[in-house]
Amino acid sequence: MKVTFQELQTQLKSVLLKYGFEEERAELCARIFAENSRDGVYSHGLNRFPVFVQLVKEGVIAIHATPASIGRHGLIEHWDGHNAPGMYTATLAMQRAIALAKESGMGCVTVKNTNHWMRGGTYGWQAADAGCIGICATNSIANMPPYGGVTPVLGNNPLVIAVPHKEGHLVLDMAMSQFSYGKLQEYELKGEMLPVAGGYDENGDLTKDPAKVRATGRALPVGFWKGAGLSLMLDVLVSSLSGGRSVAEITAAGTEAGVSQFFLCLNAGALDESVTGDIITYTKSSVALEEGAQVLYPGERTLSTRRRNEADGIPVNEAIWQQVLAL
Amino acid sequence: MKVTFQELQTQLKSVLLKYGFEEERAELCARIFAENSRDGVYSHGLNRFPVFVQLVKEGVIAIHATPASIGRHGLIEHWDGHNAPGMYTATLAMQRAIALAKESGMGCVTVKNTNHWMRGGTYGWQAADAGCIGICATNSIANMPPYGGVTPVLGNNPLVIAVPHKEGHLVLDMAMSQFSYGKLQEYELKGEMLPVAGGYDENGDLTKDPAKVRATGRALPVGFWKGAGLSLMLDVLVSSLSGGRSVAEITAAGTEAGVSQFFLCLNAGALDESVTGDIITYTKSSVALEEGAQVLYPGERTLSTRRRNEADGIPVNEAIWQQVLAL
Repeated sequence: MKVTFQELQTQLKSVLLKYGFEEERAELCARIFAENSRDGVYSHGLNRFPVFVQLVKEGVIAIHATPASIGRHGLIEHWDGHNAPGMYTATLAMQRAIALAKESGMGCVTVKNTNHWMRGGTYGWQAADAGCIGICATNSIANMPPYGGVTPVLGNNPLVIAVPHKEGHLVLDMAMSQFSYGKLQEYELKGEMLPVAGGYDENGDLTKDPAKVRATGRALPVGFWKGAGLSLMLDVLVSSLSGGRSVAEITAAGTEAGVSQFFLCLNAGALDESVTGDIITYTKSSVALEEGAQVLYPGERTLSTRRRNEADGIPVNEAIWQQVLAL
Repeated sequence: MKVTFQELQTQLKSVLLKYGFEEERAELCARIFAENSRDGVYSHGLNRFPVFVQLVKEGVIAIHATPASIGRHGLIEHWDGHNAPGMYTATLAMQRAIALAKESGMGCVTVKNTNHWMRGGTYGWQAADAGCIGICATNSIANMPPYGGVTPVLGNNPLVIAVPHKEGHLVLDMAMSQFSYGKLQEYELKGEMLPVAGGYDENGDLTKDPAKVRATGRALPVGFWKGAGLSLMLDVLVSSLSGGRSVAEITAAGTEAGVSQFFLCLNAGALDESVTGDIITYTKSSVALEEGAQVLYPGERTLSTRRRNEADGIPVNEAIWQQVLAL
């Protein structure tokens, strides 16, 4: 079934109000969940909402906490999220990084003790909409082994890079595993094989079978040693800069909460938009592998899904929708 | 055979002086080539030197040109490299980004019309040695197809992230292809298969055969669509921000010259070194795949090669060494 953006946001907001959220926060968090579904990231939209409410009930997410600036090194500002809702804090932090960049060309906000930001791309779109290049990252619970290792000690640690572009922003939202556990489960439930190897089976061989990857816990970092290295570096950047918890500590605690993030902005006033356009045109000139197919730039599919869902309504999983209506 | 660092640098410097380099530039360029060999990156050390000299002879590298600041947006400074030697300009640009970061917490220098910087890691180590987090990137000639495409339109566009650490800096120097063409050739010459798939064969299947990848020109981006997307974003960042040439224009010109780069620094005064140490310890706690092996962090192998080569001498390819002695 399908619902409108307005229906979705209104319903999510009313649940949050019921659980004690203040008006402004309920509005913002509901909007972000609704936008994630609208943009096709259902796993971090409606489908994730019941989990979020559960964490609110358990007190893992401190709904009245106020993230606060606790220090500054020039244009790098350090915040403590005080375990407020992750999307709320991330939005404020990116807003602050945007303001710093508008003023001084660049700005950075590091955040410790924050919660899951849902879809990283949200804050990339936010920066690009404000005319800034946005770069942000978060850490997570460990779910990938490093190169040459068997036990998972690396986080999925998504990296987001967004560049404003008048015909549709370029937004890369890239987790460090080839497939997230959510994606593996999606394929498994559909009884499908992955399009490319997603990890290792019980014999240590690469496999496209999502069930086998889930069984061994040996998900594959993008590009083997390369994505593994990048995951580690992102953990260092978010947690050493913020003084917050690293993947090790988040994993030891057992719940993906109290994570570390950073938000970096560059004022894109300097940006030559025509160069960006030329790059897109050139990339699309690559002869397509399948007839009728076309090469896409990062963010292009999101925008077309957004437009389709705005026109036709947002597909929702009926069971989850009923569950949320009853919350 | 092996030579000392001093012998290597002295010999390279004397060649550069003979070709008209000024003293200071000859010293700096020779040092960087020698350091690259010392650190085990032979492909961008001595082995690349004859190619560099050839480009100097052809006038592609303007040995007397002076890179100049041509504009500023707050803490983002824009330079024109005027096709001076790439390592020279990159060193000055990173030095300037470090100075901006020391002053204001962060700084960024974009450079257009510059030349190949050889090993990207060089400028990461430079930033980390100066107590800064360094992030830099360059574009290159197109040598990878995008995801869903057949013809190469993406550059290898390395990304460098460096974080200072007292027991050895963390330096990730990551090109966007799973294996560079230099690496593919190395394996082919040794008659060896790649450890993991490096691209596609003539039937469009993934292959570990380096010769087949070289034949089809379909090298694999790290993580398929993910590395392809990151490569495009890096091209946008380096060329749209600098107003310089994109992968498209470099490729059209046919020579990997006049490239675009950026150098971003964050003052690491804010950095909690103990967090970095904990992350390294935790990552190394992953049970190793092979007995006696250990998981390495980015930069660790470079440092151990450096120490070995400093103690035992730097291995050089005798034919190339003789060629350079005769230059």
